[in-house]
Amino acid sequence: EAPTVPDAQRFGHSFKIIFKMIWKHSLVFLICYFSLTVLYNFGLDEEQVRNFEALTSYLARYTRTFNWMIMLGFFTNTALQRLFTTQMTIPGTDRITTLFTMSLKPNLPEGPAIVDLYARWTVLAWILTFRIICHPLRREFPNLQAIQDSGILLEEEKRILLDEDNPVTVTPRPLVVIEWMLLLLKESMKEDRYIKESSHIKNVEAVMAFKKSCGNTIKNIPYAVIQAVVLVVYWFCTVLTMARNLRAFKNEFVRNIISYFPVMPYIQFFVFIAWLSFGRAAVNPFGNDESDINVMQLCEAHIKHSFRLKNLYTNNLDEDVFRFLP
Amino acid sequence: EAPTVPDAQRFGHSFKIIFKMIWKHSLVFLICYFSLTVLYNFGLDEEQVRNFEALTSYLARYTRTFNWMIMLGFFTNTALQRLFTTQMTIPGTDRITTLFTMSLKPNLPEGPAIVDLYARWTVLAWILTFRIICHPLRREFPNLQAIQDSGILLEEEKRILLDEDNPVTVTPRPLVVIEWMLLLLKESMKEDRYIKESSHIKNVEAVMAFKKSCGNTIKNIPYAVIQAVVLVVYWFCTVLTMARNLRAFKNEFVRNIISYFPVMPYIQFFVFIAWLSFGRAAVNPFGNDESDINVMQLCEAHIKHSFRLKNLYTNNLDEDVFRFLP
Amino acid sequence: EAPTVPDAQRFGHSFKIIFKMIWKHSLVFLICYFSLTVLYNFGLDEEQVRNFEALTSYLARYTRTFNWMIMLGFFTNTALQRLFTTQMTIPGTDRITTLFTMSLKPNLPEGPAIVDLYARWTVLAWILTFRIICHPLRREFPNLQAIQDSGILLEEEKRILLDEDNPVTVTPRPLVVIEWMLLLLKESMKEDRYIKESSHIKNVEAVMAFKKSCGNTIKNIPYAVIQAVVLVVYWFCTVLTMARNLRAFKNEFVRNIISYFPVMPYIQFFVFIAWLSFGRAAVNPFGNDESDINVMQLCEAHIKHSFRLKNLYTNNLDEDVFRFLP
Amino acid sequence: EAPTVPDAQRFGHSFKIIFKMIWKHSLVFLICYFSLTVLYNFGLDEEQVRNFEALTSYLARYTRTFNWMIMLGFFTNTALQRLFTTQMTIPGTDRITTLFTMSLKPNLPEGPAIVDLYARWTVLAWILTFRIICHPLRREFPNLQAIQDSGILLEEEKRILLDEDNPVTVTPRPLVVIEWMLLLLKESMKEDRYIKESSHIKNVEAVMAFKKSCGNTIKNIPYAVIQAVVLVVYWFCTVLTMARNLRAFKNEFVRNIISYFPVMPYIQFFVFIAWLSFGRAAVNPFGNDESDINVMQLCEAHIKHSFRLKNLYTNNLDEDVFRFLP
Amino acid sequence: EAPTVPDAQRFGHSFKIIFKMIWKHSLVFLICYFSLTVLYNFGLDEEQVRNFEALTSYLARYTRTFNWMIMLGFFTNTALQRLFTTQMTIPGTDRITTLFTMSLKPNLPEGPAIVDLYARWTVLAWILTFRIICHPLRREFPNLQAIQDSGILLEEEKRILLDEDNPVTVTPRPLVVIEWMLLLLKESMKEDRYIKESSHIKNVEAVMAFKKSCGNTIKNIPYAVIQAVVLVVYWFCTVLTMARNLRAFKNEFVRNIISYFPVMPYIQFFVFIAWLSFGRAAVNPFGNDESDINVMQLCEAHIKHSFRLKNLYTNNLDEDVFRFLP
Repeated sequence: EAPTVPDAQRFGHSFKIIFKMIWKHSLVFLICYFSLTVLYNFGLDEEQVRNFEALTSYLARYTRTFNWMIMLGFFTNTALQRLFTTQMTIPGTDRITTLFTMSLKPNLPEGPAIVDLYARWTVLAWILTFRIICHPLRREFPNLQAIQDSGILLEEEKRILLDEDNPVTVTPRPLVVIEWMLLLLKESMKEDRYIKESSHIKNVEAVMAFKKSCGNTIKNIPYAVIQAVVLVVYWFCTVLTMARNLRAFKNEFVRNIISYFPVMPYIQFFVFIAWLSFGRAAVNPFGNDESDINVMQLCEAHIKHSFRLKNLYTNNLDEDVFRFLP
Repeated sequence: EAPTVPDAQRFGHSFKIIFKMIWKHSLVFLICYFSLTVLYNFGLDEEQVRNFEALTSYLARYTRTFNWMIMLGFFTNTALQRLFTTQMTIPGTDRITTLFTMSLKPNLPEGPAIVDLYARWTVLAWILTFRIICHPLRREFPNLQAIQDSGILLEEEKRILLDEDNPVTVTPRPLVVIEWMLLLLKESMKEDRYIKESSHIKNVEAVMAFKKSCGNTIKNIPYAVIQAVVLVVYWFCTVLTMARNLRAFKNEFVRNIISYFPVMPYIQFFVFIAWLSFGRAAVNPFGNDESDINVMQLCEAHIKHSFRLKNLYTNNLDEDVFRFLP
Repeated sequence: EAPTVPDAQRFGHSFKIIFKMIWKHSLVFLICYFSLTVLYNFGLDEEQVRNFEALTSYLARYTRTFNWMIMLGFFTNTALQRLFTTQMTIPGTDRITTLFTMSLKPNLPEGPAIVDLYARWTVLAWILTFRIICHPLRREFPNLQAIQDSGILLEEEKRILLDEDNPVTVTPRPLVVIEWMLLLLKESMKEDRYIKESSHIKNVEAVMAFKKSCGNTIKNIPYAVIQAVVLVVYWFCTVLTMARNLRAFKNEFVRNIISYFPVMPYIQFFVFIAWLSFGRAAVNPFGNDESDINVMQLCEAHIKHSFRLKNLYTNNLDEDVFRFLP
Repeated sequence: EAPTVPDAQRFGHSFKIIFKMIWKHSLVFLICYFSLTVLYNFGLDEEQVRNFEALTSYLARYTRTFNWMIMLGFFTNTALQRLFTTQMTIPGTDRITTLFTMSLKPNLPEGPAIVDLYARWTVLAWILTFRIICHPLRREFPNLQAIQDSGILLEEEKRILLDEDNPVTVTPRPLVVIEWMLLLLKESMKEDRYIKESSHIKNVEAVMAFKKSCGNTIKNIPYAVIQAVVLVVYWFCTVLTMARNLRAFKNEFVRNIISYFPVMPYIQFFVFIAWLSFGRAAVNPFGNDESDINVMQLCEAHIKHSFRLKNLYTNNLDEDVFRFLP
Repeated sequence: EAPTVPDAQRFGHSFKIIFKMIWKHSLVFLICYFSLTVLYNFGLDEEQVRNFEALTSYLARYTRTFNWMIMLGFFTNTALQRLFTTQMTIPGTDRITTLFTMSLKPNLPEGPAIVDLYARWTVLAWILTFRIICHPLRREFPNLQAIQDSGILLEEEKRILLDEDNPVTVTPRPLVVIEWMLLLLKESMKEDRYIKESSHIKNVEAVMAFKKSCGNTIKNIPYAVIQAVVLVVYWFCTVLTMARNLRAFKNEFVRNIISYFPVMPYIQFFVFIAWLSFGRAAVNPFGNDESDINVMQLCEAHIKHSFRLKNLYTNNLDEDVFRFLP
């Protein structure tokens, strides 16, 4: 009865995500920061103290005057908008399998078997595509045998996909499966299984749209862009551990605040690391992070849907579901 | 005769929205601010005053040099653009029900009942989808019984949706209803109820587009992004209550202004909280806020529309609406 | 022979727009600014002068350090992009009426009357929709009688739209008209007036797209966002009239420039007010401003088009327009 | 054999574009700058020198503290994205004419004449549309006679377009031509010239899409926005010629650099003027600038294409093009 | 079994990309920087040292106060979003060739030859288009002979494309090939080779979409924009080699850090050059860079696909691929 999470829980959950995202970095940051504080207070002679103060204030100047935030803002903005587009255009199996099921003449003897075959192949093409970009799915299905064990792939199909001598196998595997689907459509047309012949081309077009959508999923923001942003943010955070404008504050109380309660540098650090993390997650939306698109769940949903489809073909509303229909 | 609100009223109304959005935060901000002023003026000895002045000017420096606004600007910009996309792509029930009604042969004896069934199921799928993301709707319809009481769900349908032993129920409920709709389309085709057979696939495609649109509605900006932004803005506002650059102003008059009329910090505070609120509302556009998409009103409109549809099927323009037609 | 305005004229025209947009604000700004200058130079004793100088330099610091421009930049950027989307997706009547006209069999005796009816209703639905959001159109058509006077609405139709006892009238008026159009489509199908039966569904889909487009036009940027931005910009401009960094400039000449020729503050003021105005106009693109979408002109064009349509139905290219055709 | 320009040439070419874009402004800037330098060094008495130094350092402060760049950045960003959308959605004549040609039955005796007529009218509608917004095209075709001379318009058609008494002429001319096209489609349907009757509606929809695309081309960023940005940038550049922070630099060498080698102000000036020029060009993409969309070339391509179409209708692949076909 | 690269490798790979992108610039930057350091420390007399210090601190002021980053941020943002659009809309050959193959009646004797012809011409049009914008592809296919050698072009076709006297050749070559395709479609219709006649128009529309997509690929961000940004970034980096705020730091240790370990200027330099490189790569996405779209690989994939298509036409699922079908 409760498909949605209560808000308080969701609130706590998202803090957990932020915490998981940031605790390692925070630990390193704070250890470095306090080590430098200890060094400054107890480990340096008078001239070294002067040098330390001069150097840290020189660095503090750089953390303030260069617009690091602008670069990161543009990057994360671009990445998030990319994420939304990906969310919207991620390929689904439901549309094409339902369309095929509904295009077939009802009461064909071979109907259920064909619907089953088509739905299974769609899911198979989907899994073979997402294995290329999605780590968790690759861990779930490390090889074709694992896919066969889950019932998505038959022995004979695996043999064809693996057959090295077969000239077909030089093509990417998802494309092989999509070609089987097209051949099945052709056969359905030849055997006169469609309600209307014009459905044939509609189904072909749906398969081609599915294929294009699979292809688009693989394209992504060039990895080197992310690497460069990561480098710069880490560099900035390193400077941040050192930067402290001690010479500008003669007041002992403030100097202690700066040395032992670095709340202001920490919040800067927090903004940068958190913002970077979201940008990274948005750039690679099929990973392990909790804010990523949950491909495993999607995969299960697609498998379930393919099982339900047989019912859609065989059931009749008035006999199998309801009795009150007109 | 006046479907639009006069501008003056709308002006006042939007101020009310802003006021409601901000008054609690403002109160806390001002209490903190003035408490610190009182503390500074009456509660500290001379050295504490010096420390206070030093600390607050240290914080004031941070409120000026770090580009907090850029982060918030990018966040709210991303969120608002997301909101527009959501507004445009929010699923509606009118298109698919009208399409179905107009595809049927006129004068079928079972026609009105079928149109009614289809329209009701569309609204049902819509409500079951929006209950997942929309608090007010979940409060309106806390369980299936509430939906049944409003006449959208029949006893027998509820039984099927609730039937735990039925293998169908492991699927999300909106999908179950959408499958009923597809079965009804199949039946209409088998019973030869369409004016043209080709309408069958058109209706199937319309249902699949409705389903995808429902699915997209649930996707959203990762909640952790918002949480991180909220954290940072609250942190900034906390610093803002403390930051006051008293040492830079020897003039007693300005020091009093800073202490007792914090208009400049308050406007900064206002910008941040207001901007954050819009970003938050845009991220979760189906909430309770007055600037949110009014899902309850949409729901009512969809229900009303589904009732009107039967007229669309049975009425004739020249007999039931006008008499002057050619 | 000259449908485009010469550039010089257009140049002058756009200055006129800017001037109209800004002159009232400019006047208030300059009066405040010079009043404060006069007060400072002639109305204050020595201590008050010191206080004035201290206060104004305190405010001047805020106009420089806080990134007001970023907030406004993001707002206007969002609003302008929204405006382009609106421009592109604004509903038009031509497509659906032309489609209907061209779908009908030529030489039907009732053809011209039906085309006329359909075209008129489309314009009627368009006007009833835009009256909700567009002030100039509401002033042109304050009530249904005004629409009837312009010949777009018949007496009998008005009666139905106004009939309070009729259960139809609880629906929004544009929807009532759209239902008439759908009924007319149904009748055309039943009376076998289409060239091809498949045109029926095409026309239904076109009407539904028109309806959705009308619905989208009403959605807009939450009014409270604009209000908040307006508040902040006015606040900033108030501060700008007071802010003057007199103490930083001992030189008498510069002090006079600052006091009597506030060109630098004025250009800041100009940027803010102009930018805000464009943002506002973009947010409410159907208003009275000269840079707004000219709905009145659009409305006229749609009405004219609906009159031309009858010719499109009855005319033959070779008899009524040209004689040289093959 | 070389349809692409070598890179070196392209490099030089783009420098030429930048140079052409900026040399006049640069000249004025540098003359003003050096005049002020000469005035300062040789034309002022001691007190005037002090005033000059005070004033220029007051202005220098403004060039640094106000975020002029942000406003310009947002403006050019918005304009460039608009340009890309325009590039993608610019109406083309190929699609609709090819579609019509391929929809006709082959071997109609009147076929070539009709294809020719339709293709010519499409180009005519295209030219009449772009004359409204594109200066070079209006110079090429100052009136209907010029269009007739190029063979796109016949005497009789011109007469109709010019006929002031004809009630048709109150409609915009491109729309008149589009109506001729629709009438030709209707006639083709009546005369049973289509391979399949369903092509009729497809062609009508293609013409309506062409019409909408023509309409969208005319819409643009409000001219007043550009004017306001131009005003502000020119104002900023004027300040830039005066601003020089001489008092902050006691060193004679740096003062000479500032006075005689204003490379740093010039690069600021360059960024602003170049950025503004791109923004302006993007806002009015059909102008004379070398980075604009080359409408003349497009126009020629469309005219050529319309001539080729007759071949597409009459030629047979196996007889007229190749001999080796199966 | 491993179509994806391990992450560690990918990590190293992207560093290599960044390194390749930046090492030449870095070398020049560091050589200039250290040369100036050596000059300052050993090559100047006392007054020259003072001048040097004054000049470098004057430049340092400019690197901090002008918002160079904003310009670059907007530019790279615009360019990256353009890149994503290009990635998504890049024309592919699969859709149209598969559609044609599946539209033909099975078992036509001339079927395989026609499918082969159509698929080859599609690839040919694709290659002729991308040769215009893509250097690597032009190096692979420097002239038509090279294309013929790879088997994509026949002798007779090459002759037609090269025939200078033939009036056809004034049209761009990709368009000539697309016209052959349209003629082939027309012939297929005349010879009654389609399963359904309505497929004819579908195929024509698919070819027109392919043509438009090819045309869009050639359009790009005006080259002069990039040139202007490059100029400004190089200028900024030149200033960066000179700018060093030596006078602000009396401390010898910090002065040595500034002179010999320019880590802070270098990271600024790194951000600018890296960001610029990504912007440039995104603007010209079909070049040689490793982060560019790999057109050569795409080309191979399209050629392979065209070979596979004959199988799709001739194979039967139950005879040639599987034996277990219903």
